[in-house]
Amino acid sequence: MNDEPRRHRTAAHEIERYGALFARRTRVMKSSAMRDLMALTAREDVISFSGGLPDTSTFAPGFMTELMGRVAASSAARALQYGPTEGLLAVREVIASVMEAEGMRVDPDGILPTSGGQQALDLVCKVLIDPGDVIIAEAPTYPGAVPTFCSYEADVIQIPMDRDGMRIDLLRDALAQLDRGGRRPKFIYTIPNFHNPAGITMSAGRRRELLEIAGERELLVLEDNPYGLLRYEGDPLAPLYSLDRDFVIYAGTFSKILSPGVRIGWLAAPPAVLKQLILGKGSADLCSSSISQYFIAEYFRSGPWLDYVRSLAELYRRRRDVMLDAMAEHFPREASWTHPQGGLFVWATLPDYIDTTDLLALAIDQQVAFVPGRAAYVDGRGGSSMRLNFSGVGEEDIREGMRRLGDVIREQVALYSTLTGRERHAPTGTESGATAPVADPARGQPDNVRPLKRKRAG
Amino acid sequence: MNDEPRRHRTAAHEIERYGALFARRTRVMKSSAMRDLMALTAREDVISFSGGLPDTSTFAPGFMTELMGRVAASSAARALQYGPTEGLLAVREVIASVMEAEGMRVDPDGILPTSGGQQALDLVCKVLIDPGDVIIAEAPTYPGAVPTFCSYEADVIQIPMDRDGMRIDLLRDALAQLDRGGRRPKFIYTIPNFHNPAGITMSAGRRRELLEIAGERELLVLEDNPYGLLRYEGDPLAPLYSLDRDFVIYAGTFSKILSPGVRIGWLAAPPAVLKQLILGKGSADLCSSSISQYFIAEYFRSGPWLDYVRSLAELYRRRRDVMLDAMAEHFPREASWTHPQGGLFVWATLPDYIDTTDLLALAIDQQVAFVPGRAAYVDGRGGSSMRLNFSGVGEEDIREGMRRLGDVIREQVALYSTLTGRERHAPTGTESGATAPVADPARGQPDNVRPLKRKRAG
Repeated sequence: MNDEPRRHRTAAHEIERYGALFARRTRVMKSSAMRDLMALTAREDVISFSGGLPDTSTFAPGFMTELMGRVAASSAARALQYGPTEGLLAVREVIASVMEAEGMRVDPDGILPTSGGQQALDLVCKVLIDPGDVIIAEAPTYPGAVPTFCSYEADVIQIPMDRDGMRIDLLRDALAQLDRGGRRPKFIYTIPNFHNPAGITMSAGRRRELLEIAGERELLVLEDNPYGLLRYEGDPLAPLYSLDRDFVIYAGTFSKILSPGVRIGWLAAPPAVLKQLILGKGSADLCSSSISQYFIAEYFRSGPWLDYVRSLAELYRRRRDVMLDAMAEHFPREASWTHPQGGLFVWATLPDYIDTTDLLALAIDQQVAFVPGRAAYVDGRGGSSMRLNFSGVGEEDIREGMRRLGDVIREQVALYSTLTGRERHAPTGTESGATAPVADPARGQPDNVRPLKRKRAG
Repeated sequence: MNDEPRRHRTAAHEIERYGALFARRTRVMKSSAMRDLMALTAREDVISFSGGLPDTSTFAPGFMTELMGRVAASSAARALQYGPTEGLLAVREVIASVMEAEGMRVDPDGILPTSGGQQALDLVCKVLIDPGDVIIAEAPTYPGAVPTFCSYEADVIQIPMDRDGMRIDLLRDALAQLDRGGRRPKFIYTIPNFHNPAGITMSAGRRRELLEIAGERELLVLEDNPYGLLRYEGDPLAPLYSLDRDFVIYAGTFSKILSPGVRIGWLAAPPAVLKQLILGKGSADLCSSSISQYFIAEYFRSGPWLDYVRSLAELYRRRRDVMLDAMAEHFPREASWTHPQGGLFVWATLPDYIDTTDLLALAIDQQVAFVPGRAAYVDGRGGSSMRLNFSGVGEEDIREGMRRLGDVIREQVALYSTLTGRERHAPTGTESGATAPVADPARGQPDNVRPLKRKRAG
């Protein structure tokens, strides 16, 4: 049985050999920036602001042992067994209580646990998207959603944001233009709270306007809310799902309030849609990890889970402040960035002659990493922006990492000044930049700065 | 924030309202027999032969506690965190050792851990299948693969088996017919060992023939091997993957040798294909459960894992024998069934005037369940067959369940005799039926038996 397996040709021919067999979607399937950069999180020498990582070191190992001991004692055989595709009732009840804490009442039978928030997005596409169908998203949008939408060959239209979130006037324009082509979006994807990557929260007024449009036009809205409970200032705003049950599909996750490693998120949707989502999940992975589900149920049974979330919020709030202070100190004044009221991310926009994808290579040389802004667009925009995560990095490392990153950026600014002959001191910015609207990074630039920026496919 | 959410219309309009929004694939997405019947496994009063369940009660709860304690002590923060899409190296090394135990040498970098074996099938489709593309599978095929293949709108062609597995002569016929239509299958899906549901093992000769065809025609073969290590008699045969690395994609899982609740399976594939599979997984769920992966790594570090597999094989062998004995005692002689050398399933075929989908309702009334054969076909065939699982049910329950099921079947046989005026005693069968080839259930039947059989969509 250990004979050498047959090898028909050399590996050099591999791509051509299988090329004809690949599905059409593989031509547009992208590597997630998440995925590529996840590898960096393992490198100890790099201070990485790239992952959307919560700080799981705050969860006491002894408590994990205790919970798992209880799971094993009461339910070992069931935790090791298949579970229903619909998820454990105990977990759906837990999810209902989490949603209640955010101002939504929902029946556990209206909820589908998924294999992380990522599968929630995938299943919504599976149920709604044929190739060429339109998804409307914010510009920028969640970098992890881009490869998912692309894998379903969707036509993604991104609507710019300002400090109040998605610009509804531009949304109306886009819908009118689609109307003229006889097209209708399958859903509108939004992250209303502490947007990933933009760090912006959609205002109450915009939420109402968005739902008015959804109601008038009978359009589905996919509300992705991983960070709602991680608010560091200001008052919570009503989730879209609390305002409209007919056109809103809600996606949540345990990743940011407990653990991403359990890989459990969820969807709440109108019953007719939920039914299809359950079928979609069954064919995708039968059910989510039973061990994870029993662990979650035991954890929520063990005490006041909101206390832990509050402790995370306090920790992340401090880290956000350290990051914003460090940016003000080390970033050049040509840069602007958002001031998130919660969540995990700051979105920074640099002078448009800097390409952050190129910058990343220089940054990694200096042992610091971020997500280049282009990952948050389907069309190659975002080239001068970057997403910076503050939740997964300690305060000292944030200061040191921002210092390194500031140096790398200021060096580029200085190089630009030299090349263009203009005198620049690349002074540091101030927090005045923090409230700047999210710029449209598709703006033009003078030809003479091209040498600094490699051309990339739009 | 707890205002009643807006409701635009009554629920009665729901299906129509969203109907136009659903993707085309939802029209052919089926409920998995697995999924529907999984619910029954929770009902304590039903003796269920329906799930593909290993007996997880054989895993000592104290050992689970011990392993999880070690995971928490050494790696709590990492087990609770995101992991790489490619999976933990430690888990890929474990997988390589499992594959080595089955006679395959593979580099851990050539392996992708997946969220159960089900996701392995889904990802292969995602990477290879456009709507209308051809997949060749056995007839019958894994009931859980049917909804996955359907969700990708594949055209599934099923090739009948005999006691040596897929009939290669009929495969050649099918390929010749496809040739005439200018079509080429994207892959050939096979479960060579202890087939689910048929309980048949593909002979060494057939394996060679299949690989010859794959090599000649440059066709990919998806070898699904969840049960290979659960052999109760006879000698192991070389896996397809051990004979050909260029055209075989290998799917394995921890579900049957450790736990389905961890939801970790895997794929090994040619590098160019693996690269696409990793992209596909990233967009589907980012990564598989880290807790599960650390648990697996710790388990395999803890000692001779093959001892546990051998103890399972011994347990399941006894249960198989009890089931076969009980079938000989209680099933009518008109029934035939397979005699599996390993795995989890017996496939029984009843007289063609019995529809096992209808029979299931009667069986559940008598508190016994199975998977109706139609679930193993894409085209409505298999209506007189059933899949019976013996691994997840204790010996006493197997005897009692088979007695109940035998009664239900014999009652139908007697009813048929009465309706058709023919005297029948519905005597019990013998094990002579055990070696009968898998019948083609598409054969005709007299019109006068229709009353026993509800018409169903082909």
